[in-house]
Amino acid sequence: MAFPRPKPTTMETLAMERANPPFNIRKMSIAMHGSEKSLILKEKFMAEIARHPAFKLSDIHDLSKDELRERTMEKFASMVYFVTNESIETFQLRMQLIGIADPSFWTRFGVAYGLFLGALRSGATPNQLSYWIDRGVLGLNGVIGCFAMTELAHGSNVAGLETTATFDRSSDEFIIHTPHLGATKWWIGGAASTATHAAVFAQLIIDGKRHGVKTFVTQLRDTKTFTLMPGVNIGDIGKKMGRDGIDNGYIQFTYVRVPRAHMLMKHTQVSRDGVVTEPPLAQLTYGALLGGRTSMVTDSSNSAKKALTVAVRYAAVRRQFATGKNQLETQILDYPIHQRRLMPLVAQAIAIGFTGLRLQVMYEDMTQALEAMEPSDPNLNDILDKLKETHATSAGLKAFCTWACLDTIDKCRQSCGGHGYSAYSNFPLMYADFAVQCTWEGDNTILSLQAGRSLVGAWGAALKGKKLAPGVAYLNDSSTRTAKSDSSLSLDDIQKAWNCVAFNVIKKAAEEYVKLLKSGKSKDEAMERCSQSRFIAAKIHTIGYIFRLFKEAVQEMPDNEESKILKTVAKLYGLWQIEEQQGYFLKYGFYNAEQIDKVQEQVDALCAEVRGVAIPLVDSFALSDHIINSPLGKWDGSVYESYFSQVQAANPLPKEHPYFTRLIKPLLERQNEDMEDPGTAMGLEDELKEIEEERKGE
Amino acid sequence: MAFPRPKPTTMETLAMERANPPFNIRKMSIAMHGSEKSLILKEKFMAEIARHPAFKLSDIHDLSKDELRERTMEKFASMVYFVTNESIETFQLRMQLIGIADPSFWTRFGVAYGLFLGALRSGATPNQLSYWIDRGVLGLNGVIGCFAMTELAHGSNVAGLETTATFDRSSDEFIIHTPHLGATKWWIGGAASTATHAAVFAQLIIDGKRHGVKTFVTQLRDTKTFTLMPGVNIGDIGKKMGRDGIDNGYIQFTYVRVPRAHMLMKHTQVSRDGVVTEPPLAQLTYGALLGGRTSMVTDSSNSAKKALTVAVRYAAVRRQFATGKNQLETQILDYPIHQRRLMPLVAQAIAIGFTGLRLQVMYEDMTQALEAMEPSDPNLNDILDKLKETHATSAGLKAFCTWACLDTIDKCRQSCGGHGYSAYSNFPLMYADFAVQCTWEGDNTILSLQAGRSLVGAWGAALKGKKLAPGVAYLNDSSTRTAKSDSSLSLDDIQKAWNCVAFNVIKKAAEEYVKLLKSGKSKDEAMERCSQSRFIAAKIHTIGYIFRLFKEAVQEMPDNEESKILKTVAKLYGLWQIEEQQGYFLKYGFYNAEQIDKVQEQVDALCAEVRGVAIPLVDSFALSDHIINSPLGKWDGSVYESYFSQVQAANPLPKEHPYFTRLIKPLLERQNEDMEDPGTAMGLEDELKEIEEERKGE
Repeated sequence: MAFPRPKPTTMETLAMERANPPFNIRKMSIAMHGSEKSLILKEKFMAEIARHPAFKLSDIHDLSKDELRERTMEKFASMVYFVTNESIETFQLRMQLIGIADPSFWTRFGVAYGLFLGALRSGATPNQLSYWIDRGVLGLNGVIGCFAMTELAHGSNVAGLETTATFDRSSDEFIIHTPHLGATKWWIGGAASTATHAAVFAQLIIDGKRHGVKTFVTQLRDTKTFTLMPGVNIGDIGKKMGRDGIDNGYIQFTYVRVPRAHMLMKHTQVSRDGVVTEPPLAQLTYGALLGGRTSMVTDSSNSAKKALTVAVRYAAVRRQFATGKNQLETQILDYPIHQRRLMPLVAQAIAIGFTGLRLQVMYEDMTQALEAMEPSDPNLNDILDKLKETHATSAGLKAFCTWACLDTIDKCRQSCGGHGYSAYSNFPLMYADFAVQCTWEGDNTILSLQAGRSLVGAWGAALKGKKLAPGVAYLNDSSTRTAKSDSSLSLDDIQKAWNCVAFNVIKKAAEEYVKLLKSGKSKDEAMERCSQSRFIAAKIHTIGYIFRLFKEAVQEMPDNEESKILKTVAKLYGLWQIEEQQGYFLKYGFYNAEQIDKVQEQVDALCAEVRGVAIPLVDSFALSDHIINSPLGKWDGSVYESYFSQVQAANPLPKEHPYFTRLIKPLLERQNEDMEDPGTAMGLEDELKEIEEERKGE
Repeated sequence: MAFPRPKPTTMETLAMERANPPFNIRKMSIAMHGSEKSLILKEKFMAEIARHPAFKLSDIHDLSKDELRERTMEKFASMVYFVTNESIETFQLRMQLIGIADPSFWTRFGVAYGLFLGALRSGATPNQLSYWIDRGVLGLNGVIGCFAMTELAHGSNVAGLETTATFDRSSDEFIIHTPHLGATKWWIGGAASTATHAAVFAQLIIDGKRHGVKTFVTQLRDTKTFTLMPGVNIGDIGKKMGRDGIDNGYIQFTYVRVPRAHMLMKHTQVSRDGVVTEPPLAQLTYGALLGGRTSMVTDSSNSAKKALTVAVRYAAVRRQFATGKNQLETQILDYPIHQRRLMPLVAQAIAIGFTGLRLQVMYEDMTQALEAMEPSDPNLNDILDKLKETHATSAGLKAFCTWACLDTIDKCRQSCGGHGYSAYSNFPLMYADFAVQCTWEGDNTILSLQAGRSLVGAWGAALKGKKLAPGVAYLNDSSTRTAKSDSSLSLDDIQKAWNCVAFNVIKKAAEEYVKLLKSGKSKDEAMERCSQSRFIAAKIHTIGYIFRLFKEAVQEMPDNEESKILKTVAKLYGLWQIEEQQGYFLKYGFYNAEQIDKVQEQVDALCAEVRGVAIPLVDSFALSDHIINSPLGKWDGSVYESYFSQVQAANPLPKEHPYFTRLIKPLLERQNEDMEDPGTAMGLEDELKEIEEERKGE
C-alpha cells in the first residue's frame, strides 16, 4: 500500500522551522557547552557510542532486567580503557555524556570509580591506597568494588548505621557483622552479581566501646570462582523503578573477619593494641559533596534538554485542528497554551545549564584555593565562608534542579499526548531513570532544609554586621527588604525582585526560629518547627541564585545575536518563576497587582518570542538522535515514519498466538446456555425499549 | 542467624498508633464510601480477588509484557460471569475496585464493555443492537470488541480522522480504508492479539462527498482460526509506560468491505440508494462523557488513597535520627516537614473522594431528569443549563483530580526515600499505570481550557443578568468580587475566599477575551490568546468546587466524632490550597499579608492535628494488603520483614552466573601490562604525594 504523505510533510515542516535562524546555532551551542572544546569532545563521544554495539539504545525498552544488566557489564571493558588513558577533564566530559545516554551504566560505573575508589582516595592512607591500586582497583583487574553504606533501616542517618566492626585483638582482625534484619546492607549497586569487594560502613567497636562509623574494605567473592566468601550472604534487590541495568543487592555479614589493615585509616587509626587515634580535626568533606552536586545540577539540565528536544520538535510537526477555512491543521507549537507548556521549561533547562557551568568553575577555583591555602592565609576565613555558603547553596540546587528536571520530563511526556505514553517515546524510561535523583545523595526535602538552615544562620550573621559570602551577600543590604519594582521588568529589575523576596522569606524563617528559641525550645526543635519556612527560604533563594548565575553568564557574553536571544530566555525564566511564586512578590510588595498582570502578559509575549526560535534553540542542545532515542524527536522530523518502524521492529508478530487456544477460543465458543438471561441482568431489555421509544418520538 | 528486632518493633509502633482512635474507623469508612452497602460490597470484592489466582498481584513487577497480557485474558472468564449476572450498580462498584487493584485489566475489560458495547448502545439502532447481542457481544461468545477511534496523527481532533468509509452502491457495502501512514488506527486496546471486531471511526464518503465521522463495526479476525480478515493488517504497539497488560495495537485497512448494515445508524442513516439522513438534532452526548469523568474523579481519589496508605504507614514505622539523649530514633511522621509532605495530600484525597460521591449522585439525578424530561417541561432550560455546567466542571475536575493523584503518587514515593524506588514498593507501577489518565479521554490541558471557556461564557451570561446553574452561581453575586476575610479561617470564610478569587480570575479571563474580540480577533483566536487566563480560571474554580462539595458533604453529616475530624480535614484542604495559590488571594485582596501568615500557621497546626489520627484515617480508606500490594504499607506494620521476604521470593539466585565467564572473568584476570601507566593518567601519583604531604602537616 502506498502511503501518500500530507503536505507539507513533517520533515518539510521542520526544515522550514530551521530556515534563516536569527542566530548562529554553532555559536549558541558553544556558549551552552562552555567552550568549543567541550562541544567537540561531546560530538566525538556521541559518535563513538552511537557506533559501539554495547551502547545500542533503540532496543532497551524491550530488554529484560537480566539482559540490561549483562549489557551494562559489556560496556565496562571499553570504559576501563578510557578511564585509565584519558585526562580527568576529558573523562569527566565523557561520563557527563554517558550520564544522559545511559544512566544505568553511568551509575554502575560510578559505583566502582566514584564511590568505591572515591572512598579509598578520601579514606585510605597512602600505603593503603597503593596496596589497593596494586591489587587492580583502577583497571578492575583483581578488584571490582562496590560501596556498602545504606542499610535497610538507615539511609539519611549515616551515624545511625547498625552494622558492627568489632576489633578482635587476638587475631588483629575486625569482625564485620549484621546484627539484625534492619542492618542488612541494602541497595548496594554491584553487589548482586558483579562486585568482588565492598567498602563497608560499620560501627567500630573496641572492647565494647563504640567509636563511630568507619570504612572497612571487605572481600565479597572469590575472584577466581566468584563464589561468596564465608559468612557473606548476598541477595538480589530485583526490579526498580528505573536504572535496571545496575545489579543492586543486599549484603548480610555473619562474623566476617577482615585484617586490621583493611580499615581505611587516613583519618582514624586503630593500632595493633586497639588504641584509637582520632583525627585532630573533623574532616572538611564539603569539597567532595560539592563535586557530586555540581554534576547533578548539570545532569538535570542535560536530561531536561533531552526531554525538551523531543517535546519541542514533536510540537512543531504535530498538527491538530484547522482554524477557519485553513485546510492545513495548526502546528500545536503555535497554540499559546502549548508555548506556555514548553517554553518556560526550555528557559529553565538553559538557566540550569549555565548555572552548572559556573558552579563547575567555582568548584575548581575553590578546590585550588583550598589546596593552596596556608593556615596563616589572611583570606582563610573568607575562603572557608565562601566554601560553606556554596556547599549549602549546592544542597538547595541539587534539590530544586533535580525536581525541576523530573517535572520537565513528565510535562514533556504529557505535551506529546498519548504517544508520550509509548515506551518508544523514551519519556517513560527518562522519567523512571531520573526519578532516583530526587531521593539519593540526600533526599531533596532534607537537603532543602539544610540549605534553609544555612540561610537562617547567614541571616543571623548579617544582623551582627558580618560581611557575607557572595551567594548571600544581598542579606547585607537592608534596603533590599523594602525594594520596589521600577516596572521595567528588565533583567536588573527581576534580579532586584528575587533579592527582595529571598531577603524577606529568609527573614521570616529566621525570626520564627528565634521566637521558638526564646519560647524555650531547643535549637534542634526550633529548627524542626520552622521547617516549612526554612523550606520556602531555600526554594526562593535557590531560584534567585539560578537566575543570577544565568543572568551574569549572559551579561558577560559579547553583544551579539546569541546573547540577545539568551537575554530573552533569561527574562522568560526570571519572570515565569515570579509568576509561579507570585504570592511572595505580592506579599512583600515588590510588585503590586497590576505589575503582576504585566508579568503574566510579558511571559505570554516571551513564550511567543522564544517559540519563534524554538527549533534552532533545541538544536543548540546538540543531542544526537542516538542519545535522544525517541522517534518523536527525530532531528529530520520523520516522526511518524520513525515511530512506526521502531514499533514494528521491536514487536514482530509471534508465529503462533501464545494463548488463543487456552483462553480466547473457549470464550468465543461458549454456548449461550451457559449464561442466565444476560439481557435482563444487564438492564438491556429496558435499554432497548427506551431506544425504541426515543425513535418513535423522533 | 537470629535477627533481634529493635524495640518497639515496627508492628508494635503501628499498634500503638491504632490504640484509642478518637473516632470510629468503621463509621468513618462508611462515610467515605457513601454507604455501608458499598463498603461491604467492596470488602467482598477484595476478598474474592485476593483468593483468585488470576488476580495475584505480588509477582506482577517481575512479569514480562507477554506474561501480563496473558494473565489479563485469564481474568476475563470470571468477569464475564459477573457482568452478565450482577446488577449494574453492584458491577460498577466491582469495577471501581478492580480499577485500583489492576488498572491494566480494568482497561482491557473497559474496552470491550465500556467502549465497544458503549458505542453500540449509543450508536446502534434497536435492531442492530439485538443483532450484535445475538452474535455474543455481552458474553464475548462470538464477538470480542475493541474501539478503533484514535489514529497515529489524530487524537483530540476526532472530526479530523482520516480513515475513510466509502459507500459502494453496487454491492451495498462500505469500503474501509487507511489512506496513509498517519491515518493508521493507533493505540487500539485489544487489537494486537485479543479482539475479533472493532468499532471503526471513519469519514463517511458517498459519491465523493464527505459526511463526517461515523462508526462501522468491522470484523478483524476469523473467530474460529483467529487469522486476520483479508485487507486487515494489525501490529503490536508494544511496550508502554504502564498498563502493559493491555494488548494495544495498530490497524491498517486496505479496502476492507463491510455490509451497509454494519454502520451504526441510530443517528445518521444511509439508505440502500446512498441517501444520507442526518439526525434532527446534534446528539446530546454530555451525559456519556460525564459518567466517564465522574469515574475518573473517584479513581483519582482511590489511587491517591492507595499510595497514601503506604506512605503514611511507612512514615509511622520508619525511624531516623535520635533527638537529644533519646536512644530511640524519631518516627519520621513526627517531623513537621514530613507532616507537611503527606497530611495535605491525605486531605486532598479525602476531599476528592467526597466530591466523587456527590458527582455520582448528581450524575444519576441528571440522567433521571433527562430521561423523564418532556419537551414542554417548564424546567427544561434549567436542567439543560445545569447539565452543561456540570459537564464543563467535570472537564476541569477530570484534569485537576488526575493531576493531583499523579502528583500524590510521586510525592508518596519520594517520602519513602530510596525504598520508594524499589519496584516492590509498588509506587513505580502505580505511577506508570496512572500516568495515562492525564492524557487519555481528553488531554488535561485541553480539558481545562474547555472548562475555562465555559466559565468565560457563564461570566457573560451573569453580566446579562441570567441566573446561573448552582456550580457557578457565585458569579451572580457581584459582592463576591470584593469580599474580605473575617480572619476566622472558618470553613465558611474559606468558602468565601474561593468564591471571591474564582470570581476574579474568571472575570480576568472574560475581560481579556472581550478585549481581544473588540480588537478585531475572531472568537477562536480570542479564546486561544486568553488561554493562560482561562486555564487559571479553570484551576481556581475547580479547587473551589472540590472544597465546596467536600464541605457540604461534611456539614450534612450528623454532629459526631467522625464529622468533627472531617471538618478538620476539610479545613486543611481548603487552607493548604489557599497557601498553594496564595498569589491570587493576595492579589484580589481577600487576605492580606498577615492573614496569609496565619494561613501558614494554621496549616502547620492542622497537619499536626491530622497526623495524630493519620493511621486510623488511612485505615478508613479500607484497602486490603492485597490491593495495596506494597510491603512498605503492610497493615500490621511488618514492613522490613515483608519487604525482605518479597524481594527474596521475587529474586531467587540463579544456579549459574549468567555472564561471569564471558564478561567478568576476563576483566579480573587481565594483566596489568595491558594498560598504560594508569597512575600517571589518573593523576594518582600527584594525589598520593598530596596525601603524603598532608599527613606530614598533621
